[in-house]
Amino acid sequence: MSKLEALRSSMRLHRIDAIIIPSSDPHQSEYVAAHWKDREYISGFTGSAGLCVVSQDEALLWTDSRYFLQAEMELEGSGFRLQKLTNQFAPEHIEWIKSKFPNGATVAIDAFDFSVNQFRMLNKELEKVNIFLETSLDLMSEVWIDRPSLSKAPISIQDITFAGAGILDKISEVKKKMLEVGSDHYLVTALDDIAWLLNIRGQDVAFNPVVVSFVCVNLKETHFFVDTEKIDSSVESHLRAAGIIIHGYDEISAFLNSLAEDDTLLLDANECNVKLQKAINCRIQEKESLIKHLKCIKNNTELESIRAAMVKDGVALANAFYWLEQTLPFRPVSEAEFGSVIGSQRAKQENYVGESFAAIVGYGPNGAIIHYHPTEANCAMIRNEGVLLCDCGAQYKEGTTDITRTIALSKPTDTIKRHFTLVLKGHIGINLSVFPDGTAGAQIDILARQHLWEEGLNYQHGTGHGVGAYLNVHEGPQGIAAINTERGRTALRPGMVTSNEPGYYLDGFYGIRIENLVVTKVHLQHHGFLCFEVLSLYPLDFDLIYETMLSGKEKLWLNKYQSEVYERIHPFLSEEVKTWFKFKCRVFN
Amino acid sequence: MSKLEALRSSMRLHRIDAIIIPSSDPHQSEYVAAHWKDREYISGFTGSAGLCVVSQDEALLWTDSRYFLQAEMELEGSGFRLQKLTNQFAPEHIEWIKSKFPNGATVAIDAFDFSVNQFRMLNKELEKVNIFLETSLDLMSEVWIDRPSLSKAPISIQDITFAGAGILDKISEVKKKMLEVGSDHYLVTALDDIAWLLNIRGQDVAFNPVVVSFVCVNLKETHFFVDTEKIDSSVESHLRAAGIIIHGYDEISAFLNSLAEDDTLLLDANECNVKLQKAINCRIQEKESLIKHLKCIKNNTELESIRAAMVKDGVALANAFYWLEQTLPFRPVSEAEFGSVIGSQRAKQENYVGESFAAIVGYGPNGAIIHYHPTEANCAMIRNEGVLLCDCGAQYKEGTTDITRTIALSKPTDTIKRHFTLVLKGHIGINLSVFPDGTAGAQIDILARQHLWEEGLNYQHGTGHGVGAYLNVHEGPQGIAAINTERGRTALRPGMVTSNEPGYYLDGFYGIRIENLVVTKVHLQHHGFLCFEVLSLYPLDFDLIYETMLSGKEKLWLNKYQSEVYERIHPFLSEEVKTWFKFKCRVFN
Repeated sequence: MSKLEALRSSMRLHRIDAIIIPSSDPHQSEYVAAHWKDREYISGFTGSAGLCVVSQDEALLWTDSRYFLQAEMELEGSGFRLQKLTNQFAPEHIEWIKSKFPNGATVAIDAFDFSVNQFRMLNKELEKVNIFLETSLDLMSEVWIDRPSLSKAPISIQDITFAGAGILDKISEVKKKMLEVGSDHYLVTALDDIAWLLNIRGQDVAFNPVVVSFVCVNLKETHFFVDTEKIDSSVESHLRAAGIIIHGYDEISAFLNSLAEDDTLLLDANECNVKLQKAINCRIQEKESLIKHLKCIKNNTELESIRAAMVKDGVALANAFYWLEQTLPFRPVSEAEFGSVIGSQRAKQENYVGESFAAIVGYGPNGAIIHYHPTEANCAMIRNEGVLLCDCGAQYKEGTTDITRTIALSKPTDTIKRHFTLVLKGHIGINLSVFPDGTAGAQIDILARQHLWEEGLNYQHGTGHGVGAYLNVHEGPQGIAAINTERGRTALRPGMVTSNEPGYYLDGFYGIRIENLVVTKVHLQHHGFLCFEVLSLYPLDFDLIYETMLSGKEKLWLNKYQSEVYERIHPFLSEEVKTWFKFKCRVFN
Repeated sequence: MSKLEALRSSMRLHRIDAIIIPSSDPHQSEYVAAHWKDREYISGFTGSAGLCVVSQDEALLWTDSRYFLQAEMELEGSGFRLQKLTNQFAPEHIEWIKSKFPNGATVAIDAFDFSVNQFRMLNKELEKVNIFLETSLDLMSEVWIDRPSLSKAPISIQDITFAGAGILDKISEVKKKMLEVGSDHYLVTALDDIAWLLNIRGQDVAFNPVVVSFVCVNLKETHFFVDTEKIDSSVESHLRAAGIIIHGYDEISAFLNSLAEDDTLLLDANECNVKLQKAINCRIQEKESLIKHLKCIKNNTELESIRAAMVKDGVALANAFYWLEQTLPFRPVSEAEFGSVIGSQRAKQENYVGESFAAIVGYGPNGAIIHYHPTEANCAMIRNEGVLLCDCGAQYKEGTTDITRTIALSKPTDTIKRHFTLVLKGHIGINLSVFPDGTAGAQIDILARQHLWEEGLNYQHGTGHGVGAYLNVHEGPQGIAAINTERGRTALRPGMVTSNEPGYYLDGFYGIRIENLVVTKVHLQHHGFLCFEVLSLYPLDFDLIYETMLSGKEKLWLNKYQSEVYERIHPFLSEEVKTWFKFKCRVFN
């Protein structure tokens, strides 16, 4: 019996007309552990974004244009049909379900996979056609025989020399906030929030060094729900010293169920799953995660550590790009190979843990594919001509990096230089910006785009996202993002680390992006104003810059940046690389 | 018996513990007719913004810092005490009422004076302490013996040669929107929406040429509720030709009451008053005023008319400023006198109707008071030194103007020039901006502020507001405004007329503001992008500009603007003024 037949047979047994299988996990994580990849299991589609709906006569997978080709290949023979999303963010499957069952039906979902707010939105729509949402079944577990178990990877301690604040200090900050808003309990479900609070890191999912777990803080105690096999004696001491009470991962529902009815529990309805919400008997207070707004403000120790990570990253990139330039005259290098060379250069640095996301190495036309990731099996060969876009990042215990450089492999055309310089002017515009405390990312976004806009050009992605401290490379709440997003409307505060990554993409030809991480800080001269300090350390390719398009201020910034990069990085380079690097860090007269 | 005693006696009779008397009218107008100035009547305070609360033992007036001095003088002997607002936009009186009556009370309001949403907000707060809001009484009418009657000023027709679209065309546009959202009726309560729809203008309030009235559009008929004495035979023909059904102003409640219960009526809960809402028996659909989003897009005829109004305004200003320069060497000129000279120069222009707001003529330190208005009785004398800020506007049948110029009356200091040039760079930044369709005012605002921000300076007002076509000088929905306002988040669309007015104010010394009106238009070269065309025509004072602080692009814009102003205005000036004006319109080499 095929997987799909097994599922349909189980659906018939439970009188379920259709089932929705999204890509998410019980923590609304960006990266999902193998154990929770039920959408991938049932459909065979391995892309990160996609959603299945299965009925007795249809099996459909919705995904966006990034994955059309891959999905078509992977769905071959699975019984699933690809539904091409016209709008990446629209719930087009809901419309399909409504039109498929216009007079009512029973649709199953796994309540672990839906946040409270996602469930509300879905239910509101389906109620319109009398569709009942069955949330108590776990059909996929019945069907999925060889389901991978959850990771048992050991937890490690994030040392206070990197974290800058102990568990007790962090809990006391959290409790202060709880008292302000009047909560007795605070349910923490986002994995990076938990890692921050308990100064722990894990290996449970790719790229994000988090531990699959829940936390519930109350005014007296902090409860940690986790697979206890991941805890060795040193981690146990670390947690016990802070009075953390350890429970099994699955005990969270019973714990929530047991809270006094008159108590108030705070949860984030965009993050907490419906299954947990249903287990709560006490009063629920819906608010944005308290930790989200603490974690984003990096303390001085974290910032010093991040600065150290940036030096390591710059050294690794210098060695990798030097290797590329030395190798290309003799043989082409595949995009995937260059990606792994960068990785192995980074791995030579102390406290390197891994990549912070799947590196984007896009040669020529591949650079114009915004979420491109080369694989060994399927990628282009880099030659000594054209333009290469390279967007990659690492996890060091000191911090998380994320940097994009676009380099010329031969004498660039005037058009490429013009486009690169427009992007560069935007990048520098953000760097040089000075703004009053309280200003949000959406308000400064135009500084990154205005030079492109003047020429009728634009890029279809945000200018910047928040970045964690040896945590998730995409971290809320802030961003240099659109005005209709929460991220875009969140005020930039001192201590926040954000990417600054304008770009320009000419489909079928090349992609340009320039990305550094910046930290918001208090302006020293102007009271009440903020500005940015650049964190990332790698030179920009002067071959791609039209000097005449730059203003005096812009050149000054560039010269200062190039010199700083050289000063900070060169002591760690071999003599041979150093000479080459000095030229790469050259300045304008 | 004093006014306050009479009110308190009436309150005792009706068992009312407190009454709230705001500054508003039944249409949520910016300018209120004398008939509705009950807050001014009871307190004696004549400022535009203020709110009274009266109980048996207290009588308080809340107003903001603009009016502290004036309020203190005017409240003398009234029995009212001034409450200084710390936040101009906070409902601090509600907190006072809650603490005054922590265990419940009955508070009266006039339901005509509160929008549906204002009422909800107030009620939600007062309910927390068991305060009952009594909305059925009209205590002020009982107390206010010599209350002025409503205006009987005749309505005039806004000719289609200015309006560019007839009533029937406009109604058909409105009906199309009603069908889209599924409304049977649409209650129009904002006076400028009605004036736009019916191509009429009035003289019922100061500055805004509107007619006190209501309109209810349904899919078959349009009903107009107005004091019929204002309608002469030509206006009657104008309305009847479009099938408008005329009712008395007071018949609106009975009309709303009579609508079929199953019908759906659309209203704007920020504009419709509670009294009317309570009269409605059918289903209510709350949406932003449909007309607001039609009226703001000026058609080509309106834009051509507005351009013609700008020429008239430029000519009047040239004559007025010439007169000032000729007069000052011989005698000082009071701020109020100069305001009236500008007014009389404008009055010489054909189709002049009046001022579009109370002119701000601020000499020296007065220029730093953002909402300053000089009166004959109390204003400064302008002398041949320092800086003068002049913000004024006119209503012509062709259109509404609003322009601010800051001029030097003697050789300015380096600091003034520096501040002026920073403001000018921001002003030019908005003018030169190019942005994709869909961009909101809050996103481009930084272009006006960034040069000031770089120096740690700022201005505490919006950068721009929408402007009507021979209608209200403050018109929604758009604005170059803060990200936390609806105006700031509204997309700028082709045909919208908006002010561009950055400034800088040095308390106790001087104020600088540069304001032109601009119209958003489609960018001719770049598909999908928009830009601005400047409408206002008056030169900028080159004596205040530091040429070296300007970029090449900025100088180019300035030179082009100065030349255009001269070309458009000089044919209408006397030889004497023309020579002077040519120098004022000079350009950089």
